[in-house]
Amino acid sequence: MKQTKIAIIGAGGLTGKELTKLLAHHPSFELVHVTSNQVNGKHIREVFPDLSHLPNLEFQKHEAPVPKDAGIVLATPNEVSLEKAPEFLAEGRKVIDLSGTFRLHNQSKFEKAYQFPHTKFSLMDQVVFGLPELFREKLKNANFVSNPGCFSTSAILPIALLGNLRKEIQGPVIVDAKSGVSGAGGRTEEIKFAYTNVYENFRAYKILTHQHEPEMEEYGFVGTEEKEILFTPHLLPIYRGILSSIYITFPKGISAEQIKEKFQTAAEKEPFVRLYQTPEEVEIRKVQNTNFLDLGFRIKGNTLVIISALDNLMKGAAGQALQNLNLMYGYPETEGLVTL
Amino acid sequence: MKQTKIAIIGAGGLTGKELTKLLAHHPSFELVHVTSNQVNGKHIREVFPDLSHLPNLEFQKHEAPVPKDAGIVLATPNEVSLEKAPEFLAEGRKVIDLSGTFRLHNQSKFEKAYQFPHTKFSLMDQVVFGLPELFREKLKNANFVSNPGCFSTSAILPIALLGNLRKEIQGPVIVDAKSGVSGAGGRTEEIKFAYTNVYENFRAYKILTHQHEPEMEEYGFVGTEEKEILFTPHLLPIYRGILSSIYITFPKGISAEQIKEKFQTAAEKEPFVRLYQTPEEVEIRKVQNTNFLDLGFRIKGNTLVIISALDNLMKGAAGQALQNLNLMYGYPETEGLVTL
Amino acid sequence: MKQTKIAIIGAGGLTGKELTKLLAHHPSFELVHVTSNQVNGKHIREVFPDLSHLPNLEFQKHEAPVPKDAGIVLATPNEVSLEKAPEFLAEGRKVIDLSGTFRLHNQSKFEKAYQFPHTKFSLMDQVVFGLPELFREKLKNANFVSNPGCFSTSAILPIALLGNLRKEIQGPVIVDAKSGVSGAGGRTEEIKFAYTNVYENFRAYKILTHQHEPEMEEYGFVGTEEKEILFTPHLLPIYRGILSSIYITFPKGISAEQIKEKFQTAAEKEPFVRLYQTPEEVEIRKVQNTNFLDLGFRIKGNTLVIISALDNLMKGAAGQALQNLNLMYGYPETEGLVTL
Amino acid sequence: MKQTKIAIIGAGGLTGKELTKLLAHHPSFELVHVTSNQVNGKHIREVFPDLSHLPNLEFQKHEAPVPKDAGIVLATPNEVSLEKAPEFLAEGRKVIDLSGTFRLHNQSKFEKAYQFPHTKFSLMDQVVFGLPELFREKLKNANFVSNPGCFSTSAILPIALLGNLRKEIQGPVIVDAKSGVSGAGGRTEEIKFAYTNVYENFRAYKILTHQHEPEMEEYGFVGTEEKEILFTPHLLPIYRGILSSIYITFPKGISAEQIKEKFQTAAEKEPFVRLYQTPEEVEIRKVQNTNFLDLGFRIKGNTLVIISALDNLMKGAAGQALQNLNLMYGYPETEGLVTL
Repeated sequence: MKQTKIAIIGAGGLTGKELTKLLAHHPSFELVHVTSNQVNGKHIREVFPDLSHLPNLEFQKHEAPVPKDAGIVLATPNEVSLEKAPEFLAEGRKVIDLSGTFRLHNQSKFEKAYQFPHTKFSLMDQVVFGLPELFREKLKNANFVSNPGCFSTSAILPIALLGNLRKEIQGPVIVDAKSGVSGAGGRTEEIKFAYTNVYENFRAYKILTHQHEPEMEEYGFVGTEEKEILFTPHLLPIYRGILSSIYITFPKGISAEQIKEKFQTAAEKEPFVRLYQTPEEVEIRKVQNTNFLDLGFRIKGNTLVIISALDNLMKGAAGQALQNLNLMYGYPETEGLVTL
Repeated sequence: MKQTKIAIIGAGGLTGKELTKLLAHHPSFELVHVTSNQVNGKHIREVFPDLSHLPNLEFQKHEAPVPKDAGIVLATPNEVSLEKAPEFLAEGRKVIDLSGTFRLHNQSKFEKAYQFPHTKFSLMDQVVFGLPELFREKLKNANFVSNPGCFSTSAILPIALLGNLRKEIQGPVIVDAKSGVSGAGGRTEEIKFAYTNVYENFRAYKILTHQHEPEMEEYGFVGTEEKEILFTPHLLPIYRGILSSIYITFPKGISAEQIKEKFQTAAEKEPFVRLYQTPEEVEIRKVQNTNFLDLGFRIKGNTLVIISALDNLMKGAAGQALQNLNLMYGYPETEGLVTL
Repeated sequence: MKQTKIAIIGAGGLTGKELTKLLAHHPSFELVHVTSNQVNGKHIREVFPDLSHLPNLEFQKHEAPVPKDAGIVLATPNEVSLEKAPEFLAEGRKVIDLSGTFRLHNQSKFEKAYQFPHTKFSLMDQVVFGLPELFREKLKNANFVSNPGCFSTSAILPIALLGNLRKEIQGPVIVDAKSGVSGAGGRTEEIKFAYTNVYENFRAYKILTHQHEPEMEEYGFVGTEEKEILFTPHLLPIYRGILSSIYITFPKGISAEQIKEKFQTAAEKEPFVRLYQTPEEVEIRKVQNTNFLDLGFRIKGNTLVIISALDNLMKGAAGQALQNLNLMYGYPETEGLVTL
Repeated sequence: MKQTKIAIIGAGGLTGKELTKLLAHHPSFELVHVTSNQVNGKHIREVFPDLSHLPNLEFQKHEAPVPKDAGIVLATPNEVSLEKAPEFLAEGRKVIDLSGTFRLHNQSKFEKAYQFPHTKFSLMDQVVFGLPELFREKLKNANFVSNPGCFSTSAILPIALLGNLRKEIQGPVIVDAKSGVSGAGGRTEEIKFAYTNVYENFRAYKILTHQHEPEMEEYGFVGTEEKEILFTPHLLPIYRGILSSIYITFPKGISAEQIKEKFQTAAEKEPFVRLYQTPEEVEIRKVQNTNFLDLGFRIKGNTLVIISALDNLMKGAAGQALQNLNLMYGYPETEGLVTL
């Protein structure tokens, strides 16, 4: 019955687990292979005791042979994706990469943001950026997709949906974002993610130096002149969800009607974009465990404030990946993206 | 031994409790009278079982006669402060008011922000704004002091400490602030502060419409031309602490040395201002239960980002009130403001 | 396609919402009617913005006519269930009641526990207690089912699964249970469930006086001589999940093999019972959003300690209700009880 | 002014920090030396930015020479205490050890509980167990004190305060305890204390095998026949505080008056014991940051349930250590034990 085989390389992390859960309930994708260098050898049901409908699989090492005909999800660190993506592509497989490795088309910006040399940059000619709201047609039947970052999605979409109004923006655009622990990257055994350092605490990190900043600039302004983005992420004492407050200046002024028309149109057309009457209604609670990007806005003088929220593991990672996989394989775009 | 009598009107709330705790350990202030319309009739030790060194007092109604010679702290709602402050001043008492009633010198801005008519506006001629870093000399021996708001302090101080550099700012200044529940105002029995609505959640509120916005404008730019401030508060799932990310544009550019010199000078001179080498080191944890305002900053292009943190119940309310009381009564400014 | 109509009376609460979510994804149940006296008149999608696949329904008042042929779920307070259950039964409908009204067969124990007179006690002759592990055969095609309490399920199942070993128990059995806020009953706007009263706090409540105590006694010892249970619930600063530590004395001693054999047999046979090698492996995290009851145990001397965990909204309420509905209507017992 | 010098060996941990805070505000103790193998070389103000009134000290290595005449607090792991305590005692210093090394007088129980050979067991002849409510006279002027464990204190005191009623107890006594992260031992960088593993979770650990169990048995029943204690600790998603539910069987029955008389007497005499009218009033919130042990109880049939609460860093560790230091050096027992 399930007709398309999928392998997840690096399925032991938070994103890998989320995608495993989604695929287990998808009517058409069959998860046939999972790898993890940490829990290699363990049964998937032992590793994820809280999930149901799991296939009968054991975790393999990253190097283990992948079943023929399986599409590939890379939920791996940048260095592993850099090595594995070209290998799997060379085998004629469809590949979607969740790392940041294949997102930026400017090599020097990439190497500054990610701090290592990009040895496979020629692949940037064929990769499609996995944001269906912007690149839906290219994603249909694409062979190589780079899934956006979680913070990036929360900023790119609200900005890009402004369409031609973006021409009037006077930079820089300020993105003040707040993320739960699961979206703050890093590994949970790090001391900075210890309970005693997160709980009843709040702080900013990588201020104006986060690697998602150039990604927001490239795709937030796709199709128009690029503006500077200033991005400050903060760590929330919650598990999942990102809320971003985005400040945009229109020197000639802007009306609520102009903004509402853009967002309303998107909300009507896009299955995973919702617009609220007031920005105070946008909250992390409403998007947790969903694939929605929620939006609200307010204008004062020449400044537009947009509040956006998404679940970093869903629309920010695994949910968006499944949305892309649906497009890549010709299934209905929302299939399996019910509220799980 | 304790030589100065203090009465707290409205001591049953979070701020009143915090000040009660501080006064109990202060060598010179004696708490002689506490009122609360909620817990009226109960002994103070029954209401605050987790505090020690409490005096032998029962809560009175707001209208109960106050011991002669006692200085007055008003930890009351705006309407009560509006009525009580002139009464106590007329009795020749020193008064410090923790509400927002006597902070703004522009009556129309006040009435727009607080949504009720200010019937005692003539008192604005004699009140001193209780921010010692800006008005220390006036506070010494002042008879009527208006204690700043918690959000306001987190924004006013970083901006005001920029001194003459403020002339170069091109507005608006963006203040994106995040507060724990105890600083978000309102009363804890409101449904919006129910555990299930705060926990594992995050949202903005009163976006660009919060009553502290005009206060930031008036005092952040005191002594120089006023600029517009755009203020967005957010509700953190923690109990106490505020962290503000402040974005300021200098069209002609600004150097880290210029900013550092201003902040470093303040940190050396001011007992409750601390400057960190990097803004990532500023975190709510480090200021909880202290009277410190912590600062860090970064510059990119023409934009300065300042991260400030304070404890909303301490430097944002009761701690600052005690700092002011020390000045008003001629005690050492830091007395009793140890880490309690 | 969906062939069985279901109406939820009282769908606006936490349990009603959970069951709404489950039914929305169930292949055979169609939700055709939802009522709530609080959100009466609102569309179900507006009330539950984080759910998907919702039917096109508006909330009705409890009194609104229910579509013909619809089975009834009562997720209502005791008093409402007492009134509504007989009405719906008289209409020839299948009814499952999630309140405590129809659980106890001893009327005086009921009236002591629930503090109001039971005016429909004759219905106790026809009701089936909705614990499939104990009453599966009776539940198949039952017309009137009383769904167990959340705390009760966490204690009844571990005790009842001991089978004939229960004869050797010397009472009382101690059930020390800890529940997240959603399982602690009451309404979230109560001051005791305010964020500031739950967060960074922990306390016991209704010690030895909770209304679930007699339910544990009746069903934990079903088929054998009833023993006394001493039950102490505590309030955890989490949202969902119950973990119970159950202390049982066997004066003649008991072996780990004896206990393991009972639990292992149940775990193999029952789709929603899991046994861990050590009791330290049982944790609330592993059962959240699942319909599992997890078990582990240890013996020292004559005392057996069982640790059980379940999700109070799932196996403790809505999940168990759906498991019962599946049996009542002849669908596969696990249908729709995926990890949502 | 400060007349007694104190050195803390192992001051970099949570308990060491709490005691540092307390000593900084104590009128008579002067902290003159702090060691830590982790933060060795750093200034104490840099390590504890949230503390005030700190002395001008740098952290030394454990091996650094300690100022002459300084009393010693060992806040070190068992192995370090085992080595250091005899050395400092041989130098004629007063020593208080916060580890478990010198608490048990039964060597085989010690070695079973702590899993290493006790090579200095002869010191057990001279050590005093640091529970002032039981050993106040011996503690006055004692030279070597072993500070009780945090869980232990929460169980020993309620049991021991029962006095001669303990003879009627039929064992085992069940201690079901719940602790915040700071009391659960271990080091915060362990994966089990990662935010994602603690938050929205709850579990038991070391069930019936915790090293505090024999300590409870020895001191809970001091002066009477020892009974078995069954101890199950659980990990709460909070930072500080322990609440224990203690179940005791009296085969001949017991009256509330008998229990109340014992506890009431203690509460009146002991500065840090409080008794509540109902056990539901005992909660962790009320003891956090205090040195109190709070008590409440209920009886049903032959079973007594006691609820006790304390702050594991205060009455469970550093607060109790200061209470002992006050006794050892002849200062008022409550000095410096204000609510900090």
